[in-house]
Amino acid sequence: MSVHTDRSAATVTVLGLGPMGRALAGAFLAAGLRTTVWNRTPGRDAELVARGAIAAASAEEAVAAAPLTVVCVVNYDASDAVLRRDAVATALKGRTVVNLSADTPGRARDTAEWAARHGIRYLDGAIMTPTPTIGTDDAVFLYSGPEELYREHRPALDALGGTHTHLGEDAGRAAAYDIALLDIFWTAMAGYAHALAVARAEGVTAGELAPFAQGIAAILPPLFTEFAADTDAGTYSGELNPITSAASTMAHIVHASEAHGIDASVMRVIEGQARRVIALGHGSDGFTRVAEVLDGHRGA
Amino acid sequence: MSVHTDRSAATVTVLGLGPMGRALAGAFLAAGLRTTVWNRTPGRDAELVARGAIAAASAEEAVAAAPLTVVCVVNYDASDAVLRRDAVATALKGRTVVNLSADTPGRARDTAEWAARHGIRYLDGAIMTPTPTIGTDDAVFLYSGPEELYREHRPALDALGGTHTHLGEDAGRAAAYDIALLDIFWTAMAGYAHALAVARAEGVTAGELAPFAQGIAAILPPLFTEFAADTDAGTYSGELNPITSAASTMAHIVHASEAHGIDASVMRVIEGQARRVIALGHGSDGFTRVAEVLDGHRGA
Ligand SMILES: NC(=O)c1ccc[n+]([C@@H]2O[C@H](COP(=O)([O-])OP(=O)(O)OC[C@H]3O[C@@H](n4cnc5c(N)ncnc54)[C@H](OP(=O)(O)O)[C@@H]3O)[C@@H](O)[C@H]2O)c1
Ligand SMILES: NC(=O)c1ccc[n+]([C@@H]2O[C@H](COP(=O)([O-])OP(=O)(O)OC[C@H]3O[C@@H](n4cnc5c(N)ncnc54)[C@H](OP(=O)(O)O)[C@@H]3O)[C@@H](O)[C@H]2O)c1
Repeated sequence: MSVHTDRSAATVTVLGLGPMGRALAGAFLAAGLRTTVWNRTPGRDAELVARGAIAAASAEEAVAAAPLTVVCVVNYDASDAVLRRDAVATALKGRTVVNLSADTPGRARDTAEWAARHGIRYLDGAIMTPTPTIGTDDAVFLYSGPEELYREHRPALDALGGTHTHLGEDAGRAAAYDIALLDIFWTAMAGYAHALAVARAEGVTAGELAPFAQGIAAILPPLFTEFAADTDAGTYSGELNPITSAASTMAHIVHASEAHGIDASVMRVIEGQARRVIALGHGSDGFTRVAEVLDGHRGA
Repeated sequence: MSVHTDRSAATVTVLGLGPMGRALAGAFLAAGLRTTVWNRTPGRDAELVARGAIAAASAEEAVAAAPLTVVCVVNYDASDAVLRRDAVATALKGRTVVNLSADTPGRARDTAEWAARHGIRYLDGAIMTPTPTIGTDDAVFLYSGPEELYREHRPALDALGGTHTHLGEDAGRAAAYDIALLDIFWTAMAGYAHALAVARAEGVTAGELAPFAQGIAAILPPLFTEFAADTDAGTYSGELNPITSAASTMAHIVHASEAHGIDASVMRVIEGQARRVIALGHGSDGFTRVAEVLDGHRGA
């Protein structure tokens, strides 16, 4: 085991060994940290143990093994089930938890309050990239909570690779970014899955469509930047592409889909939002004006 | 006007001077083609005429001025309104129309049939990039219809910059790709607009979110390729990210949105599709399995 103590005396515990928890623990091991692992369902740790991880028999035993525990389970119902037990809370007293599970800002804040009440040092976080990026330059991690805690554990977290950003002291802030970014991600993925279904019905294979789909992904970043500026300024110029043109395209997508018996309910909702913007008299605006009508408090 | 005849004796007509039609005509002019323009509503050609474009008084006069007419209007109801008049059809006989308006594959095929009946040479097409890309390396054009027609007019079309791909003889094929790719584009944009609304409600400005949104856009291309391979193979591995995990995230997005009074109907539909995949017993599959349940003919 000398290879694990050579580089660093740092020790870490990982709770949750789904695909992401295993990737995190694997990156800690690869970086030479002494890594203790635990998962609700036994048997997920075999490969990690073969690589030098220490298997704990319980969550309380796991958290007692290191000053820093990283939790990565499906959501905060799951992280509550793991953390909010007397034995675990007692073992965590004075130690740090970094919770990299995904959930809402409210759940993150609530967990920070629970931790404070139990003398547990707590940092919330979110992982914005898929498992294969972990341990590479492409990984992206967000954190919120006490900055000093972030600074203290940053050397260990750096073992996960990629870029790490502390977004502020409010524990909910990483989850707020996470929710918004996953909203983009899963909506885009839903569009892709739907596009593959439509393409197939038209005799176009996914493999044929994919290179062009990459082209679509490539035009998003500059548009994201441009529309962000529009949104913060409250100007929604449709000079280059009016929402009336977008709505027409959306209708084609709905018709072409339904002509093949393919559910177009996502695009129907989106077209409805665009039509609402037009009905409110903003037809020459750009599509991002939709963000205004989605918000019940802002209306049109 | 010598500048326009120096480079090439090629001549072209552009019908439709919305943002995209103006960009196309501008690129033809910049490349030195003698360019005739017309638009239903007068007055849209001022800047182009100042740059050397020839203003036609009617669509029939415009199409008579060149062997190649490029049409770019909002959709095929509009292109029918422009093209399917006796005077225009007569003037177009023996000439070529390249229709770069967006619509469904069915409308494209129907227009190709109409053109054949009138002795008009017809190529359908689609533009996959925004107006600022026209005339630059970033522009992307798709075509379908007779390959010889594509080859013949490719030199003139090259004036539009970027990459040009001929997808096959079926006139509807460019529109099939267009529909599928715009499906990805507008669904992703809807996700972005929604994310901006959620972020704002959480006190995160669009400008703060935008750099991370770029990061999300950057992870899409490799996932698109991976999921295309899955889809064509009919394997939907959730080993790295099971759809149960995705559904949990989708529920957080819905809850966090609605807690702020923000319409989450798009994500509600997407979550419903994911839940349907899970209910059908595919919870350990990856998200793209959704493409199967969207298709009424394929079911689960
Ligand atoms: N996979 C990715 O690409 C990716 C990317 C970014 C962020 N994330 C986030 O990372 C987190 C973990 O994701 P994942 O990919 O590893 O898979 P996941 O399916 O989201 O989570 C699986 C993990 O959650 C545990 N779990 C579920 N319910 C539990 C409960 N009631 N009590 C205790 N443990 C429970 C599972 O334990 P059992 O084995 O006992 O079921 C397993 O360890 C999620 O929040 C996800 O959103 C994942
Ligand atoms: N803008 C982009 O970034 C972009 C990108 C890729 C593809 N496209 C596609 O390019 C095409 C043109 O788009 P655009 O951006 O220029 O704006 P647009 O708003 O989609 O189209 C405006 C053009 O359509 C004409 N038009 C509408 N109804 C008509 C009718 N009944 N009869 C005759 N002409 C009619 C307008 O003439 P009037 O001036 O008389 O109303 C104007 O010339 C669309 O199919 C669009 O999907 C656009």
